[in-house]
Amino acid sequence: MVNEKICSRLTALRAVMKESGVDWYMAPTADFHNSEYVDDYFKVREFLCNFSGSNGTLIVGQNEAGLWTDGRYFIQAERELEGTGVTLYRMLEENVPTKEEFLAEKMQKGETLGFDGRVVDTNFGRKLEEKLKEKEIRFAYGNDLADQVWNGRPALPCHPVTVLDEEICGQTAGEKLAALREKMKELGADAHFLSKLDDLMWLLNIRGRDVECNPVALSYAYVTGKECHYFLQEGAVTEKLKAHAQKYGVTLHSYEDTLSFLKNCSMEGKVLCDPQNVSYAFYKAISQRAEVINAANPTELMKAVKNPVELACMEEVYVKDSAALCKFIYWVKKNVGKIPITELSAAQHLDRLRSEIDGYLDLSFPTISAYRANAAMMHYEATPESYADLAPEGMLLVDSGGQYLGGTTDVTRTIVLGPVTDVEKEHFTAVAMGMLQLTDAKFLYGCTGRNLDILTRQPMWDRNIDYKCGTGHGVGYILNVHEGPQGIRWRFTEGMKEAVLEPGMDVTNEPGVYIEGSHGIRTENVMVVRKGEKNGDGQFLYFDTLTWAPIDLEAIDPSMMQPKDIERLNRYHETVREKITPYLEEEEAAWLAEATRKI
Amino acid sequence: MVNEKICSRLTALRAVMKESGVDWYMAPTADFHNSEYVDDYFKVREFLCNFSGSNGTLIVGQNEAGLWTDGRYFIQAERELEGTGVTLYRMLEENVPTKEEFLAEKMQKGETLGFDGRVVDTNFGRKLEEKLKEKEIRFAYGNDLADQVWNGRPALPCHPVTVLDEEICGQTAGEKLAALREKMKELGADAHFLSKLDDLMWLLNIRGRDVECNPVALSYAYVTGKECHYFLQEGAVTEKLKAHAQKYGVTLHSYEDTLSFLKNCSMEGKVLCDPQNVSYAFYKAISQRAEVINAANPTELMKAVKNPVELACMEEVYVKDSAALCKFIYWVKKNVGKIPITELSAAQHLDRLRSEIDGYLDLSFPTISAYRANAAMMHYEATPESYADLAPEGMLLVDSGGQYLGGTTDVTRTIVLGPVTDVEKEHFTAVAMGMLQLTDAKFLYGCTGRNLDILTRQPMWDRNIDYKCGTGHGVGYILNVHEGPQGIRWRFTEGMKEAVLEPGMDVTNEPGVYIEGSHGIRTENVMVVRKGEKNGDGQFLYFDTLTWAPIDLEAIDPSMMQPKDIERLNRYHETVREKITPYLEEEEAAWLAEATRKI
Repeated sequence: MVNEKICSRLTALRAVMKESGVDWYMAPTADFHNSEYVDDYFKVREFLCNFSGSNGTLIVGQNEAGLWTDGRYFIQAERELEGTGVTLYRMLEENVPTKEEFLAEKMQKGETLGFDGRVVDTNFGRKLEEKLKEKEIRFAYGNDLADQVWNGRPALPCHPVTVLDEEICGQTAGEKLAALREKMKELGADAHFLSKLDDLMWLLNIRGRDVECNPVALSYAYVTGKECHYFLQEGAVTEKLKAHAQKYGVTLHSYEDTLSFLKNCSMEGKVLCDPQNVSYAFYKAISQRAEVINAANPTELMKAVKNPVELACMEEVYVKDSAALCKFIYWVKKNVGKIPITELSAAQHLDRLRSEIDGYLDLSFPTISAYRANAAMMHYEATPESYADLAPEGMLLVDSGGQYLGGTTDVTRTIVLGPVTDVEKEHFTAVAMGMLQLTDAKFLYGCTGRNLDILTRQPMWDRNIDYKCGTGHGVGYILNVHEGPQGIRWRFTEGMKEAVLEPGMDVTNEPGVYIEGSHGIRTENVMVVRKGEKNGDGQFLYFDTLTWAPIDLEAIDPSMMQPKDIERLNRYHETVREKITPYLEEEEAAWLAEATRKI
Repeated sequence: MVNEKICSRLTALRAVMKESGVDWYMAPTADFHNSEYVDDYFKVREFLCNFSGSNGTLIVGQNEAGLWTDGRYFIQAERELEGTGVTLYRMLEENVPTKEEFLAEKMQKGETLGFDGRVVDTNFGRKLEEKLKEKEIRFAYGNDLADQVWNGRPALPCHPVTVLDEEICGQTAGEKLAALREKMKELGADAHFLSKLDDLMWLLNIRGRDVECNPVALSYAYVTGKECHYFLQEGAVTEKLKAHAQKYGVTLHSYEDTLSFLKNCSMEGKVLCDPQNVSYAFYKAISQRAEVINAANPTELMKAVKNPVELACMEEVYVKDSAALCKFIYWVKKNVGKIPITELSAAQHLDRLRSEIDGYLDLSFPTISAYRANAAMMHYEATPESYADLAPEGMLLVDSGGQYLGGTTDVTRTIVLGPVTDVEKEHFTAVAMGMLQLTDAKFLYGCTGRNLDILTRQPMWDRNIDYKCGTGHGVGYILNVHEGPQGIRWRFTEGMKEAVLEPGMDVTNEPGVYIEGSHGIRTENVMVVRKGEKNGDGQFLYFDTLTWAPIDLEAIDPSMMQPKDIERLNRYHETVREKITPYLEEEEAAWLAEATRKI
């Protein structure tokens, strides 16, 4: 069936391309700050091709169009692209060209590639330059062509920013600015252009709400040894912010003036820019005036290592958040088949329980509530137009989290609603074994996530199954639910960056099994890296868990497990019971005791 | 106690340095080809400072001298450097400067650093250039100053080369040259200068014996699209080699003429050089005449992936080699305390058993026979001057291997000679568990050794112990016992190279525990990467084991093991018994049955 809405949008885009002399047009996922989640204003790619996943790039020519996305979204993209005429390119699969390989092959000598230079990061822009050099491709990056075909496009979001109480930050904005200037000095940078929103929020101890679930404000900063120029929309400025800015020597400017400031300020010496996050258009503007130091924002690593105040707040918030999840699990198990529950109403129930927690701000991402085969789509989202009814059979996967004054949470449990197959049990048990093996890891300082990934993945690989995505990511503090630079992944690419795991970093641990058309399982906790013994062999590290919710024993097959696996599960469940019971009603507590029983 | 021999050598060197205007002199480990093991001719560093380990660099100034070596050798170096006045710098330990950091700090502006440019690889030479640029350090790399102070220096080794039977090579020299030229084309190289000896032997299907235990001949090659110029000492050329060379279009030249050939040949286009293996002096000569492509020798990866003929020969050779080791273990266990046995005579007995195997050529490295605390020195070598007597208590670590027409072996077993402590048992069992966990690994194509290392290391890290060295290395085919590019290691350094594990690669699996002054344990098998299931998630791989010798049950504590660990050990021992029994005498076979009993 042809998707006429999308086809007509693509036709309109192709007409505008022709008028503008653009032969191919590229629409990635990003906003002006390479944020992972983006406001509706920026959802050009979804508008043009219907694919709604969080990662994907659309490339449109006059006669064909392609969408690139990663393994999390293959099933979903296939469905959403149906009838659009857009071809799905499965990233990292064998014989699938990358975007740049595709363009290098398809584009003719001297043709023009169009894209909005504000939404393409510098790294990728330069990779394209390199790859398309030989064909003498012209880049038209000054215009957002999609804007001309998108009637009723939402406005750029703008909300007042909040200044955080210093009590929950552990460090003042002044201290953070001083530490950043130290790092700039080490890197030989006289100035630093910051574009990454969560880094900016962290640095200035402020939060916004310009992106759903991400407590960030659209803004930029230009920091020198003495000055800090902060650019944000006028509607975002409050009196409290003005006082805060003055206190720490921050000069406020209008968001729209960023580019002209960069073109006119006195720019001396070297300017530090993170080519992964500063967009191509801004990089081009700066590099025409100064020598650029290409390096990650120092704030990224500083922010990733949580300080003791942040960690203490997180521990408290995670227990409360886990308690809400436990209440939800009890509720859905008790009521399924008795009252009508859908994927959507289940998610709404959980979201409501979270919203009742002290300091609740928002969800940390839209709750994923995926029943049975829907759960095989890693980032499935039930919508009012499309959702499943829950029944007392099979499993419900719920991946969710909240933003609180005190931390950001991220947790997944797969909940048994009724009879499950032996295969589902085998997969569920394997996932639990992997998750708990990593939880128990002891490792030397110097390890990155790549050293540890196999501890989680091993029970799946032993069964010739892979979950095609990373095992874990960092989590922000009252910030984005996905945060770098740390991560737990296995794939190697030449020259890749890897972050050594530092004490104080938090990271998720979320293995899964996804069987298309059948079932999907994921179990996810958040853990913190802690210092263990230090001896002549080095500094040993281990993980402390933050998340406390039962792993459904109804899908656990103890006969697959080694005594050590069983002991790990029992130990985890014992702590769940201890920490969560105080937050529960009597019948919930009785259920939890049973759900966390020793096996 | 002052080591007067060494002190007087250093005094003599310092005098020559003064005469030559050299302020600091550097003596690394290498021969002209960056071989890991080197002939006595090249043992300048050992001559100058007494440290005899396989990895170490000596740096001498007028008032101080330092030796850099890695964790395998800390204990040994401490002992050997005693009384020499040379400071030990423990590489990779906290707050220990690297060689280049040391020189950058110690050298004064405009001073001269001397070294023999033929024994320093290009990568390191260029790193030094970079690091010492600011201080305007002059490099005097044309002279081997040590030559002037080394009376009675051995001659450059020279032995006739052997042309291998094509039946055991699986590929002719002509086929290998054609494949190399394909790879050169892919890299855009018009010519290729090869300096790595094992690559040269592999490429031309020849072997030498210019280095103890390494069946290689000192030589170079310069390969173009049509020509192959091969440089070797005249004493190495045989009639058979001449015919072989003619058959495959290889022109023979004298070894001594290499540099003048490079300076005078028609050198057009780009020349491929591996900066890790081509020495600084040669690199400088080539880069003055042509554009250099810096990349690993394509032969390195080609050689690492063993072909089916090689693998079939290896399987057979490994069983015979394992049988010799089993006979040895039986012999030493039976006779210890009854007849006089020393570390040295034990090694000699094992070496003799190996030499009786069909196709035996040489040892693949000097046998390590280390009793009790001596085994805590990872690369300890008993000598006629210094060895221990064996007694019926504690453990004997034997790391050994042979060169055969059919393969190169490398195996370690730690043998219980009498009562062992609970701690020794705990460590021995942990080592066995780690070794067997890696043996059983299943993993996706794309993994490098860094993904897998923790499977072996985990039981040690769980006990706050690290073995401070890699878990595994590639093994040559009738070639060097240490071969790249594959390896199993955990440490991450920014920009490091890692080799994806390819089906057909072989790799050792050799965890250990080394407790200074007490005991040392290592268990080592060689494994081959094999293809497993291929499905939508990717190509799964697994390991096949080549080495078959019992893991001493007298030091195994089953109470520490999970059922899975016990099952792995029993499964391994069952195969040992099946494969090795046919090679044993009756009483040996009876012992083996007991030594491989089910636990």
